[in-house]
Amino acid sequence: MRLALIGAGRIGKVHAASIDAHPDVTLVAVADAISEAAEALAAPRGAQALSVDEIFDDASIDAVLIASSTSTHIDYLQRAAAAGKAILCEKPIALDLEASKAAAEAVTHAGGLCALAFNRRHDPQCAALKAALVDGRIGKLETLTFTSRDPAPPPMDYLKGSGGIFRDMMIHDFDMARWLLDEPIVSVHASGSCLVDPAIAEAGDVDTAVVVLTTTSGCLCSISVSRRAVFGHDQRIEAFGSLGMLQTQNETDTRLKVVGEQGQVEEAPQWFFLERYAKAYRQELDDFYQSWREGRAPRAGLNDGVEALRLAEAASRSLELGRVVYLEEL
Amino acid sequence: MRLALIGAGRIGKVHAASIDAHPDVTLVAVADAISEAAEALAAPRGAQALSVDEIFDDASIDAVLIASSTSTHIDYLQRAAAAGKAILCEKPIALDLEASKAAAEAVTHAGGLCALAFNRRHDPQCAALKAALVDGRIGKLETLTFTSRDPAPPPMDYLKGSGGIFRDMMIHDFDMARWLLDEPIVSVHASGSCLVDPAIAEAGDVDTAVVVLTTTSGCLCSISVSRRAVFGHDQRIEAFGSLGMLQTQNETDTRLKVVGEQGQVEEAPQWFFLERYAKAYRQELDDFYQSWREGRAPRAGLNDGVEALRLAEAASRSLELGRVVYLEEL
Amino acid sequence: MRLALIGAGRIGKVHAASIDAHPDVTLVAVADAISEAAEALAAPRGAQALSVDEIFDDASIDAVLIASSTSTHIDYLQRAAAAGKAILCEKPIALDLEASKAAAEAVTHAGGLCALAFNRRHDPQCAALKAALVDGRIGKLETLTFTSRDPAPPPMDYLKGSGGIFRDMMIHDFDMARWLLDEPIVSVHASGSCLVDPAIAEAGDVDTAVVVLTTTSGCLCSISVSRRAVFGHDQRIEAFGSLGMLQTQNETDTRLKVVGEQGQVEEAPQWFFLERYAKAYRQELDDFYQSWREGRAPRAGLNDGVEALRLAEAASRSLELGRVVYLEEL
Amino acid sequence: MRLALIGAGRIGKVHAASIDAHPDVTLVAVADAISEAAEALAAPRGAQALSVDEIFDDASIDAVLIASSTSTHIDYLQRAAAAGKAILCEKPIALDLEASKAAAEAVTHAGGLCALAFNRRHDPQCAALKAALVDGRIGKLETLTFTSRDPAPPPMDYLKGSGGIFRDMMIHDFDMARWLLDEPIVSVHASGSCLVDPAIAEAGDVDTAVVVLTTTSGCLCSISVSRRAVFGHDQRIEAFGSLGMLQTQNETDTRLKVVGEQGQVEEAPQWFFLERYAKAYRQELDDFYQSWREGRAPRAGLNDGVEALRLAEAASRSLELGRVVYLEEL
Repeated sequence: MRLALIGAGRIGKVHAASIDAHPDVTLVAVADAISEAAEALAAPRGAQALSVDEIFDDASIDAVLIASSTSTHIDYLQRAAAAGKAILCEKPIALDLEASKAAAEAVTHAGGLCALAFNRRHDPQCAALKAALVDGRIGKLETLTFTSRDPAPPPMDYLKGSGGIFRDMMIHDFDMARWLLDEPIVSVHASGSCLVDPAIAEAGDVDTAVVVLTTTSGCLCSISVSRRAVFGHDQRIEAFGSLGMLQTQNETDTRLKVVGEQGQVEEAPQWFFLERYAKAYRQELDDFYQSWREGRAPRAGLNDGVEALRLAEAASRSLELGRVVYLEEL
Repeated sequence: MRLALIGAGRIGKVHAASIDAHPDVTLVAVADAISEAAEALAAPRGAQALSVDEIFDDASIDAVLIASSTSTHIDYLQRAAAAGKAILCEKPIALDLEASKAAAEAVTHAGGLCALAFNRRHDPQCAALKAALVDGRIGKLETLTFTSRDPAPPPMDYLKGSGGIFRDMMIHDFDMARWLLDEPIVSVHASGSCLVDPAIAEAGDVDTAVVVLTTTSGCLCSISVSRRAVFGHDQRIEAFGSLGMLQTQNETDTRLKVVGEQGQVEEAPQWFFLERYAKAYRQELDDFYQSWREGRAPRAGLNDGVEALRLAEAASRSLELGRVVYLEEL
Repeated sequence: MRLALIGAGRIGKVHAASIDAHPDVTLVAVADAISEAAEALAAPRGAQALSVDEIFDDASIDAVLIASSTSTHIDYLQRAAAAGKAILCEKPIALDLEASKAAAEAVTHAGGLCALAFNRRHDPQCAALKAALVDGRIGKLETLTFTSRDPAPPPMDYLKGSGGIFRDMMIHDFDMARWLLDEPIVSVHASGSCLVDPAIAEAGDVDTAVVVLTTTSGCLCSISVSRRAVFGHDQRIEAFGSLGMLQTQNETDTRLKVVGEQGQVEEAPQWFFLERYAKAYRQELDDFYQSWREGRAPRAGLNDGVEALRLAEAASRSLELGRVVYLEEL
Repeated sequence: MRLALIGAGRIGKVHAASIDAHPDVTLVAVADAISEAAEALAAPRGAQALSVDEIFDDASIDAVLIASSTSTHIDYLQRAAAAGKAILCEKPIALDLEASKAAAEAVTHAGGLCALAFNRRHDPQCAALKAALVDGRIGKLETLTFTSRDPAPPPMDYLKGSGGIFRDMMIHDFDMARWLLDEPIVSVHASGSCLVDPAIAEAGDVDTAVVVLTTTSGCLCSISVSRRAVFGHDQRIEAFGSLGMLQTQNETDTRLKVVGEQGQVEEAPQWFFLERYAKAYRQELDDFYQSWREGRAPRAGLNDGVEALRLAEAASRSLELGRVVYLEEL
């Protein structure tokens, strides 16, 4: 697969490394608003630094990976679809639900492959949990519990334009919840506080939240998030069902154990999401490649982005109104 | 301490064993509606089978442990207080909030020692978590998460008179939440489903529930319960704060590990609450004895029973009304 | 069972507590060289402080528990056997192999019940490992590995009369090895160093040792001991076989986990053998009682004491000679 | 670094993948006795399939990685050294101690960089344990314990030419022991049995062994190996010292935990050494590259191969003679 990368920032570099390691995907072009950034990623890989227009016009390019800023996603999605490229697009489609929905419909109508980069679906632990659920290892799923804590809040500049904790951070958990629950969600109730940094409250957001979702069959799903965990990335899932329970655990750099007067000590969880999800990013690219090669649906598509955003909207509204919000209201 | 035991049923026997093992507490009398049951507990211990009246009239008896059926608690509490006995009373005071409140006030007014048997406060793991919180090991508490699953639902006969999942089962978690949060709770939101046994729904109850409490400082507390966990008693607490996290873990009979083709296997959690909380029951009696000897307040008193019941009421109302309930409403 | 306790020192007190907790064993008498010590244990339990002679002469006493100093064991064993008492005797029989052997033969010839207090056989974890071996959970046992470390060396006065690290400390592991291997041991090779305290070397002993045993079927058993582990009692067993592996783990006071910047911390292992083996002492008494009631052999008898001592002799000789010692040499 | 790979078999492919992933090392040539194998590795990477002679004659090649069959190592080592190439050579140098020693001396005399591929020194867990030792985390090292079990024995054809369990398998542990002990080893005692497959005994070898090493300061090191662990690769190290203990743990594919009636189950250890040591192989190449760039010594050199082989010789002799062998004897 001859792939062009649009966006040479932090996440673009992560994808470039995954492309390097994939035996069947070749990076042929990089575009970025800052042409030096595009050049820096392209040159050592024998790829070209091109403009976005040049990429869409080049018939030899099979696929584009959209990793530019969120505000550009809808435009590039539509142009890439029109140009007949296979698309892997970073999340979110957009911060606005209606616009996302319209874009998803348009791209879907074009008929080509379009995968959305919900990286956690590709994490080996999360994927093993999903497989165990599908295999019936715990019978009927009854309670699903997410713990999702980032090591530290992002800069205030970023936070202000992020769309809030539900659209920016919990969106990952909403997507995982949808994927694992595998049935319609009926209602959303959100509680939230600002406990980490008062500046976040001043910006009209919360930094600590608990959301409870209910599904048509009565399954109860809780999601607890915080913008700051001093010990590192804290992301765990627990699925409880009629026959047992599945639990993912935090990852550590090594499993070395130190036993001394202070106790039995294992390493703190990995700090940064790039380490924690390094394998997930590689698997995500491979899923995209395999979908393209086999003509099958990717693990996550644009509609998944729309639906996760709908849950984020419902949670925001629930927190604002102080009541349960039903999905049918949106 | 010369102690009389009122109630020789299952929980009465648990207390009798704790009394046997305590060096400074002597069982001198046992009363039970079924006199053979009283006799069977009393005789091998050199204690007398007496009537409740005889116990209250016997000035040589320092203390009574009320472990009879819930409907008798208020009467016995008031008579024991009037008789000047130190009291350790099994929970709940009653299923009715107003009656509990009135009884608690009356007994408190009498001025003697009256401890309520919230056994989990005395569990060594839970107590160690509380001590670590108090010591500031995790800084300011921000999120508190309870998982509480019984191995199997009680008989339907019992369930029908139990007052429902919030008053009967989650009451323990409400008490632990109050004790660990250590600040006023503002609101309660409950979600619930009947997933384990349709007969429970027919009886107007749920068997799976998630409740979210918020406190004055904005701390978020979630409690997830189920009436059935096929692998045994599943009771864990996670306290997350500004400096770290505390977690209790389920107990197993032994720590033997078996490694084979099927994986690395540790024992399932202990099945029954009597095994799981065996140490808690012994500590509870000792706390009662030490409170009596030192003239200090016990770890849990009647007011704790009233307040836990108030949370149960609020949760029931929240589930019924489908909205957040504020404690000030009750 | 009406039981008399001979020896009211540290280990005597442990046994007294086990007797308190056993529903079917009653302490009726205590003897000790220091009569106040006997009185202090006897009085609060309604037992009598008697002389050893009085105990052996009292036909109403069913059983004696010998917990006096090692030098008295052989005399008391023989007198108790002659008096027809059931006997539970603290280990070792004696420090001398030939004398132990002679005493064991004499007592065995008398025909009554005589159990030797190898407490670890009764530890729930060790017993569960044994049961799993017998059940064939790991197929044919091929390698057996013991780690046995005391938290701190005993006082030098004690050490000088202890018979050395193999007779005093590793004797427990030799007994467990014999019990778990369940086939004849052929040879012993010992390595040892003095690393903890030079005074131990001056006393002619080592404080750190590794012994390798081989059995008739070729099973290899290693035992690694140290007189000092700063983090507490470190006693673990690993059994490896054709179908898998069994591992015991150290015990902690509680399973509370603290996660912070320093890592994920569980408590250090329990420090003192009395805590670590509290359950084992209670089980040991119950095994003695059940053996007496059912007329069956106890879990460990005098011959087990002789055979463990033989292995200690072989290890001492191996360390001295710097070569493998074959059991047939002794 | 322009690198040529000699040997395109299983281990050659592992190294090729590490080279792919290294940003500063370029594969320019591949040689193999089977030219199609060389071509298959070289072509997709834009490298040339060359003869060994061509590689040594090409002045533009900075370094060679010798991954051909053991019998060719000494010849290629000497020719590569003469040609002034930096060398990374797979272990062992040879199966014969004297020949290995002579080759190591010759290559060392030539003065260039020559690293030996003892991959475990580069495993992140092992490296973290080493770093903790060096940092004094456990004070003075007193006991070092290795468990090393392969999932299944290699084919008999391979085993017959392998030099036996000590030279072929335990050689890794001998190297790790030398690296971690960091002081001269004085003596070796080996015990061994054939328990896995009688054909191994017929070939004059054992499949289960325990070796005890002693050092000048009295540190005791035990190594327990088996050719077969049904649950996968079982390789753990425990370092015990005056201030505490360090333990490595087996790796699993994911940390998913399944809790059910059968217990609490984590995955079996990874099965194959290529998965278990995937990161180690990449680190090894990087250490080689960094040594070359900075002109420093590699983490393992030819002399380490000679000394590990000397320990294997001593262990073989100890097993044969049934006595302790002193290193000074060899």
